[in-house]
Amino acid sequence: MQVIRTIKELRAWRAQRPSVALVPTMGNLHEGHLALVAEARHQAASVVVSIFVNRLQFGQGEDFGAYPRTFDADCAKLEAAGVDVLFFPDEAELYPRVRQDYNVEPPHIQNELCGAFRPGHFRGVATVVSKLLNIVQPDVACFGKKDYQQLHVIQRMVEDLNIPVRIVPVDTGRAGDGLALSSRNGYLDAGERQEAPRLYRNLERIRDALQGGDSNYAALETMACEDLTNAGWVVDYIEVRQADTLEIAHAGERRLVVLAAARLGRTRLIDNVEVTR
Amino acid sequence: MQVIRTIKELRAWRAQRPSVALVPTMGNLHEGHLALVAEARHQAASVVVSIFVNRLQFGQGEDFGAYPRTFDADCAKLEAAGVDVLFFPDEAELYPRVRQDYNVEPPHIQNELCGAFRPGHFRGVATVVSKLLNIVQPDVACFGKKDYQQLHVIQRMVEDLNIPVRIVPVDTGRAGDGLALSSRNGYLDAGERQEAPRLYRNLERIRDALQGGDSNYAALETMACEDLTNAGWVVDYIEVRQADTLEIAHAGERRLVVLAAARLGRTRLIDNVEVTR
Repeated sequence: MQVIRTIKELRAWRAQRPSVALVPTMGNLHEGHLALVAEARHQAASVVVSIFVNRLQFGQGEDFGAYPRTFDADCAKLEAAGVDVLFFPDEAELYPRVRQDYNVEPPHIQNELCGAFRPGHFRGVATVVSKLLNIVQPDVACFGKKDYQQLHVIQRMVEDLNIPVRIVPVDTGRAGDGLALSSRNGYLDAGERQEAPRLYRNLERIRDALQGGDSNYAALETMACEDLTNAGWVVDYIEVRQADTLEIAHAGERRLVVLAAARLGRTRLIDNVEVTR
Repeated sequence: MQVIRTIKELRAWRAQRPSVALVPTMGNLHEGHLALVAEARHQAASVVVSIFVNRLQFGQGEDFGAYPRTFDADCAKLEAAGVDVLFFPDEAELYPRVRQDYNVEPPHIQNELCGAFRPGHFRGVATVVSKLLNIVQPDVACFGKKDYQQLHVIQRMVEDLNIPVRIVPVDTGRAGDGLALSSRNGYLDAGERQEAPRLYRNLERIRDALQGGDSNYAALETMACEDLTNAGWVVDYIEVRQADTLEIAHAGERRLVVLAAARLGRTRLIDNVEVTR
């Protein structure tokens, strides 16, 4: 595996490759990322994984500084997974003027769900992903469904700005007890780790009710919220939405997604389940 | 010359071409556009001209509806100029959802100079140009210096978002009496047409003063403004700025540009001159 740190070298490498799949990450890789890599290997002849902890998508008081940087371990995992190139630019390479002046501005959805709690987050995601897509020019890019709203924003951005790439969504990887794999799980202490699957259990409960024909979304959301709050969580949101648009779901909607974000101690966890009925 | 109206066909054509130069236009072509085409032919093996009157960059009360559409005459000129492909999408092709949800948002410069009089204009320009670049994937794109602020926004956008294209600026074409070539010159009646070169004459006068070492920008701006106002113009702005950043120019600045926009009857004309001293 080649480690490339500059845009110029990455482009020179890319120009010689017939088809490329990109997996953008912030590093601290786990099995969830490796599932993205495996999918990427099915999609194209060469696979690029990028590792870049993107300051733009972190708000004030968020964990930009504390976000785990585990370069050597990440390299070993990517090498073993058969990745061709690790693109590992530093901040000066991606933000040479420090300030990013031109940004991709998503519509109102950027201020809803996670966006209501992380102002500027989805602008930062959309902007850095569009930069990475312009740099790598992949045929395909793989994103996890765990970050469902992020996947939605990227899919819609690619359509709306006619970016020449195919976005491939990949199912959420889970631990045996159901907890969605996430770099932030590493922040949990032993007691919190045991408690953490409650988030997914509540999503499953709502999914089962929806599949049984229940359309009283507000009641289902409230019940889950109470269960988590009683167990010591601070719930940011639990919402039933339309799966394809992330708009408010109306009764009788067929394709739904239940999204949640909640904090356990100092760790913010997110998860979601899709429902077709 | 091939006329292509869909993104899909344009991409299929482009995939077979080793190098492509793009000249984005809104049609109603004149010698200024043909100078862009000539430059494009020097830059790449194949030349695409796009014609698209972009609703997004027109404000309320502006001339979107009245903007001259002269498809047959444009085709004849492009054919004669050796253009390979005319890309001529309709609105449903570029804006299939009608609303453009994801936009490229320029920084504060979008609200200065022409931007102060045309709210949303440069967001619309940046967004449609990024769409056209994503669709055509040209190696090179040619833009006229006549729209100096537009050229600046596009050059900075391309850098900031790492869009893989080289932007080639082309000097402003002028009539014998100095008037900058523009589709909007067609709105002028005979008397206005005779009066119109006064704009450029004032820019030349400021340029000469700057080259002579004068750094009293405000006085030079005021003098030109008065000359135009006395002759019946309504001046939007006349400003001396830094050529490379379009920021406010300080005394002693070496690379300057003088930009102006003024209305003669119902026609809004813009022009500029660069000064190196």
